[in-house]
Amino acid sequence: MEFELKDRERLDDLEISGLHIIQSPDKFCFGMDAVLLSGFAYAKKGSRVIDLGTGTAILPLLLWAKTEGEHFTGLEIQAESADMARRSVKGNEISNIDIVEGDIKAVEDLFKRNSFDVVTSNPPYVISEHGIANPDAPKQIARHEILCNLEDVVKAASYLLKANGRFFMVHRPFRLPEIFENLRKYRLEPKRMRLVHPQIDKEPNMVLIEAVKYGNPRLTIEKPLIVYDENKKYTEEMMRDYRY
Amino acid sequence: MEFELKDRERLDDLEISGLHIIQSPDKFCFGMDAVLLSGFAYAKKGSRVIDLGTGTAILPLLLWAKTEGEHFTGLEIQAESADMARRSVKGNEISNIDIVEGDIKAVEDLFKRNSFDVVTSNPPYVISEHGIANPDAPKQIARHEILCNLEDVVKAASYLLKANGRFFMVHRPFRLPEIFENLRKYRLEPKRMRLVHPQIDKEPNMVLIEAVKYGNPRLTIEKPLIVYDENKKYTEEMMRDYRY
Repeated sequence: MEFELKDRERLDDLEISGLHIIQSPDKFCFGMDAVLLSGFAYAKKGSRVIDLGTGTAILPLLLWAKTEGEHFTGLEIQAESADMARRSVKGNEISNIDIVEGDIKAVEDLFKRNSFDVVTSNPPYVISEHGIANPDAPKQIARHEILCNLEDVVKAASYLLKANGRFFMVHRPFRLPEIFENLRKYRLEPKRMRLVHPQIDKEPNMVLIEAVKYGNPRLTIEKPLIVYDENKKYTEEMMRDYRY
Repeated sequence: MEFELKDRERLDDLEISGLHIIQSPDKFCFGMDAVLLSGFAYAKKGSRVIDLGTGTAILPLLLWAKTEGEHFTGLEIQAESADMARRSVKGNEISNIDIVEGDIKAVEDLFKRNSFDVVTSNPPYVISEHGIANPDAPKQIARHEILCNLEDVVKAASYLLKANGRFFMVHRPFRLPEIFENLRKYRLEPKRMRLVHPQIDKEPNMVLIEAVKYGNPRLTIEKPLIVYDENKKYTEEMMRDYRY
């Protein structure tokens, strides 16, 4: 494996299937939310999978390793992130991950309607406000709703999914009512949800959601996912199912 | 205290403030959901409180004991339940609980708009279907959406509440997307939510929700409420904050 690294980039070992990922700490590094989403999502054999706002392609890489999906696409609007993602895919010698540089709001120009079985997204969480110091900075774009908002992501997912296709998203619990409202507006019925708590006696700081296109209403809320035990070590379940 | 008991009725000790309640096991007895709601809800000094679908008035009685609310109303459509509720209030010698026999769908004829600070409800959970064996049975009416559905309850709550008034509801987690959608439709913004799990490693079977009329969007999801510990005994928190 040969990875082409540019200035101030580093190569991180993903500790699964021998995969590595190129990241740039100045710009954005993936977090626990992406890893948790890769453990919550699933893709059956033969599935076509797309990740909306893929950054450096952490989701396509992890899902490539963890699922039997047939083909993976990562859509990313930021040229530098898309370039790192492409070099990571190439360096890992993977032929069935494509990185597409483009806008979530323009999926209709980029992809056919109803052409994916699975959509994943770890979108910006923070509601955009005027006066962000560096609205062009890669970290701000990844975290704040500057270039796209929740509704844009949900609308794109609905457009891309086949009937009964599955949308997996990680987001912040405080926006849950808005999340559900948008999902139902675009006929993505929330079917499964899991709250992630840093510790058993703490409020959740992440929510994992699975929605099914044209699904019938009935939500299963799973038992809470607890990240750290009382000794501040990863819980058994985190080590087993959601590591690292 | 003197309670007038009719045939097949019994008097139960609520173990708080010396209160008792008349119930009829043939018809309907209150459950843990009502008790949990009475611990989750709150009413400030001077508040006017109404409980929609009050049954035998368990919520007004417990909130009378637990809060500083000034006046409590219980609205109940079933004549026999309303009658038991009235006799319980009288037997407990309480002057500031009124029981009104009437339909949640007709609140506009019964009460003034924006006339309450707090609305509570433990409504029927089960989506109504054709072919319920005894659609007139009191238990069926209390549990199934025969005489009113989720939207009717939310719509009534919104009508009754003042601006910034609070709506507290207990319901089933599997209907959460629909609950949020209805609340927002009637300008009751979900602000606080707590999932109730029978045990720490089990899926939740109840959800407690607080919504604020005209509130700004931002939901706080609290740490899970666990009912039983590993020895099948009530957890400490249940004994402390939610028991009666």
